[in-house]
Amino acid sequence: MLLTSDARGVFPIAPTPFLDDGSIDTASIDRLTDFYLGCGATGITVLGQLGEAPKLEHAEAVAVAAQMIRRAPKLPVVVGVSAPGFAAMRALTRAVMDEGAAGVMIAPPNTLRTDDQIVGYYRQAVEAIGADVPFVLQDYPLTFSVQITPAVIRRIASELPSCAMLKHEDWPGLEKISALRAFERDGSMRHLAILCGNGGLFLDYEMERGADGANTGYCFPDMLCDVVRLSTEGRREEAHDLFDAHLPLLRYEQQPGVGLAVRKHVMMRRGLLTSAAQRKPAAALTPTARAEVEHLLKRLARHDRRAAL
Amino acid sequence: MLLTSDARGVFPIAPTPFLDDGSIDTASIDRLTDFYLGCGATGITVLGQLGEAPKLEHAEAVAVAAQMIRRAPKLPVVVGVSAPGFAAMRALTRAVMDEGAAGVMIAPPNTLRTDDQIVGYYRQAVEAIGADVPFVLQDYPLTFSVQITPAVIRRIASELPSCAMLKHEDWPGLEKISALRAFERDGSMRHLAILCGNGGLFLDYEMERGADGANTGYCFPDMLCDVVRLSTEGRREEAHDLFDAHLPLLRYEQQPGVGLAVRKHVMMRRGLLTSAAQRKPAAALTPTARAEVEHLLKRLARHDRRAAL
Amino acid sequence: MLLTSDARGVFPIAPTPFLDDGSIDTASIDRLTDFYLGCGATGITVLGQLGEAPKLEHAEAVAVAAQMIRRAPKLPVVVGVSAPGFAAMRALTRAVMDEGAAGVMIAPPNTLRTDDQIVGYYRQAVEAIGADVPFVLQDYPLTFSVQITPAVIRRIASELPSCAMLKHEDWPGLEKISALRAFERDGSMRHLAILCGNGGLFLDYEMERGADGANTGYCFPDMLCDVVRLSTEGRREEAHDLFDAHLPLLRYEQQPGVGLAVRKHVMMRRGLLTSAAQRKPAAALTPTARAEVEHLLKRLARHDRRAAL
Amino acid sequence: MLLTSDARGVFPIAPTPFLDDGSIDTASIDRLTDFYLGCGATGITVLGQLGEAPKLEHAEAVAVAAQMIRRAPKLPVVVGVSAPGFAAMRALTRAVMDEGAAGVMIAPPNTLRTDDQIVGYYRQAVEAIGADVPFVLQDYPLTFSVQITPAVIRRIASELPSCAMLKHEDWPGLEKISALRAFERDGSMRHLAILCGNGGLFLDYEMERGADGANTGYCFPDMLCDVVRLSTEGRREEAHDLFDAHLPLLRYEQQPGVGLAVRKHVMMRRGLLTSAAQRKPAAALTPTARAEVEHLLKRLARHDRRAAL
Repeated sequence: MLLTSDARGVFPIAPTPFLDDGSIDTASIDRLTDFYLGCGATGITVLGQLGEAPKLEHAEAVAVAAQMIRRAPKLPVVVGVSAPGFAAMRALTRAVMDEGAAGVMIAPPNTLRTDDQIVGYYRQAVEAIGADVPFVLQDYPLTFSVQITPAVIRRIASELPSCAMLKHEDWPGLEKISALRAFERDGSMRHLAILCGNGGLFLDYEMERGADGANTGYCFPDMLCDVVRLSTEGRREEAHDLFDAHLPLLRYEQQPGVGLAVRKHVMMRRGLLTSAAQRKPAAALTPTARAEVEHLLKRLARHDRRAAL
Repeated sequence: MLLTSDARGVFPIAPTPFLDDGSIDTASIDRLTDFYLGCGATGITVLGQLGEAPKLEHAEAVAVAAQMIRRAPKLPVVVGVSAPGFAAMRALTRAVMDEGAAGVMIAPPNTLRTDDQIVGYYRQAVEAIGADVPFVLQDYPLTFSVQITPAVIRRIASELPSCAMLKHEDWPGLEKISALRAFERDGSMRHLAILCGNGGLFLDYEMERGADGANTGYCFPDMLCDVVRLSTEGRREEAHDLFDAHLPLLRYEQQPGVGLAVRKHVMMRRGLLTSAAQRKPAAALTPTARAEVEHLLKRLARHDRRAAL
Repeated sequence: MLLTSDARGVFPIAPTPFLDDGSIDTASIDRLTDFYLGCGATGITVLGQLGEAPKLEHAEAVAVAAQMIRRAPKLPVVVGVSAPGFAAMRALTRAVMDEGAAGVMIAPPNTLRTDDQIVGYYRQAVEAIGADVPFVLQDYPLTFSVQITPAVIRRIASELPSCAMLKHEDWPGLEKISALRAFERDGSMRHLAILCGNGGLFLDYEMERGADGANTGYCFPDMLCDVVRLSTEGRREEAHDLFDAHLPLLRYEQQPGVGLAVRKHVMMRRGLLTSAAQRKPAAALTPTARAEVEHLLKRLARHDRRAAL
Repeated sequence: MLLTSDARGVFPIAPTPFLDDGSIDTASIDRLTDFYLGCGATGITVLGQLGEAPKLEHAEAVAVAAQMIRRAPKLPVVVGVSAPGFAAMRALTRAVMDEGAAGVMIAPPNTLRTDDQIVGYYRQAVEAIGADVPFVLQDYPLTFSVQITPAVIRRIASELPSCAMLKHEDWPGLEKISALRAFERDGSMRHLAILCGNGGLFLDYEMERGADGANTGYCFPDMLCDVVRLSTEGRREEAHDLFDAHLPLLRYEQQPGVGLAVRKHVMMRRGLLTSAAQRKPAAALTPTARAEVEHLLKRLARHDRRAAL
């Protein structure tokens, strides 16, 4: 099953589970995958920015992706293949597509500046991985320092038919969604799936602007699924109520660096991960930070029973 | 009255009010100042990053600061004097100190990289403005791309006695506050006032980590004052309840670029500003964004009557 | 006399002369101006990147420009007015145009990224300074981190008739000159004067690619004038011979940071400046560096008698 | 044979030879290695910044390094292993050390800012590759945007005994060499081999400041060997004469982006490479640029017969 531009719903960004000794925790991979399936995810993204991909050897990366693909045969699994060179990108892409991946996600290297450089980079990437491999364009200026305008996204969509999805995480990005949907309405751009990242910080209004869903790794993917569903069903205030209840924790999790430690800690507390361990280099939670997370969970539990751990 | 390292409470970052024709709106300056006084602010910062300082001629900048100083004679008024060169920084500093400013705020130019460059820059700045002028060190890596470690802040505090306050807006920054307060406890660093910016996004826990207050421009400075007061009084859950109620709007306002338009729009709706006008260049609110702000206000009003406009 | 797109020849970037006590050295301003006139310069640029503009108060900056303008009434004098905000840019532009400047030079702020941001910035700058003021587009990615493609330069030239000249200092930039001249030949772009900066490091081949001259501050502006003249007259090998003889020193002078100290030192040794003093902050020449410069001059003197000091 | 801090002389940065069809040109690898041996190189660095490493699959990279190691059993071969993650760095390091490499070269990722981040990165890298693997610290701010002060280099040398060499390519960097050698003289820092890169643009004076040699890929490595030898023997003016003769071409080759095309073109013209082909993405020489290179060679041949091709 290949990724198409009709994708919608929630593609959680899966963390890579490790045991305390740093080895890959295959039991948690299965448990996590089952949980995503159970809460209504419509796809999964592995080895993304917060999937600790650079800490995995090539064979390990392929194995992690392959296990998820096998465990969720009905879900499209997208694999992050961003790399400093096209040789490594191509090698990983081939390996995971052979394992049944639905597509790959590619972030721009942080040296790109001009519009032409950005379009040129994706053109070369497609040449490297093959035009038959659907890809997700990751647009995350805060992290990558690359600014991609709506017009440049339109150029990429037009030139490169294998671009299936935009992982939208510009900040602020609401007007970008509106601009892209306006392009679509005026006929100047084909439809791209737009799933939102950036930790979900603006998911509430992003949905109302025309996004198709979420593509982020917040420690309550079930909340993301609920908010996307409520918003899609037009139950606006319910969507906002649920989202707002999670916002204090979601904001806390979205801190650069330490965010992944928060995410893994909560997922461990929820029984999804055996351990919150990260491979080095990693930012750890101090005892104070851990107490803050517990405080946030306790406060959240007043509104969402799933946080009563 | 000069700024000292004992400062605490809330120093709102004042926007510069304009009329629709772009002229400075002196009536709103008075109204705004009175409002800050009325809601318990303990100081005011003008001509900060979101005070549109680069759009003011030198004489205008001095006039805006002077008017606030005269209107609030009992409050310390800090003036942003960041500039690409020390000549302009010195000229503005002298002018506003002559008008009675309590001190100045200096952000690092975004070309600084090494620890020594950062310390050297502040050393030169102090030489330029005079060692008798208290200054606020603005630490905002997200905007300035300059990363200042706790050890570098300690060096600056040690070398430069006129450094009175840290405008803390690192992100994530909770551990930085803890590190600085630990330095203070172990006797390796003198006390600096730490007031938090970054839109207030982590004010709730920043207070608990040892911050002395807030130094940001959120459109409800009265909420900032209340949260700082509740937190200081140990009324922890009340502080969080109030903060969390505002978080959806606060997050919305903290978007780079468009954030100031949100802030000025709400302040106009609250009757604090005659107009939400900015001088060019400025990001404007689209009708959709304006509707989103109204939606946020309406939802907020269920928890805080001040948002019922 | 206003700058036009027919400009050609050499516009030296004038340093700002200071006495040892940091005051402006007006005698050297006259001497320097006379020297430029004498060696065949066709214009002068003051208060550029290496003119220490940020260290001058507004009134000083205007005075320096005005003195040069009065001293060289037949030469167009271009004034650097780059500033973090349009208010300061407009104020300085008005003041120097009133004094008889031929135009202004504007560098892009280092936060610009996308093509549209760059075009938009110059559009706003022109709105601020007035469409009747000729301006030089400074294209120096190494220093400003802003990359402007030939197509973007064409857009600016097309949208903004007051853009008269490109200060070309991209690196590598030979193909950019060729691309712009090709646009001109195919009729898609009007003629812009292209004068080359980047310390003159590629002036030899830049002339052959279609540049109109040099716009840089090398300590032997007389050599720049000679090379441009020889190249224009088709005396190719003579141009290269002279250029190559200077290349070791020219390269040494082009070091970021310390380069200006080299330049002022040699100009002092040549009797053009009373002192090599810079205002703070400044990188000084160590004794070893000074000895290296003397060594370079001595070696150069074997080929160019003007270096026998 | 392992790299030690006593290394000196010239370690050419080897390009990776490709045939026109993009396959690795093993015949040229041997020819190139023999040439390096013949002209007096004291080591070789492969898969560096200009070795097109990101375009090689893992197995190809290992094979290229292994072939050079076998062909030059008496020369230490250093292998570039810079990677976005420590897993890939470790995998490549282990593979090439097993093949007999003398050590590895590690560049800092361009996200590092503070002194502590830089030291911490190298600490983690050593942990990843093993403390028994000698490494070269690559200090190239122009390309990597990471600024490493002499004091930070001293910290790294002190903390990490496996740091054997500094590939010095700061710009300007003459004072950095002097500062490091002063540390050594005052006993605060152990000896590190300092070999200079940055295209060799300042090799003449770098040798006089105390550098131990060159570590760059200029298309005339024989000139680098001669200059280093002449300088070491105290034949100062001869060293400068030879260097200056090459400077016009050396400067031309050092253009970012297109420089590698120049280098490979000249090496092909010299019979060292079968083809000047690069794998994609690559900047190609235009016909005009190629003619400029031929012109430079012809002019150079008047001074150095090796350029008469």
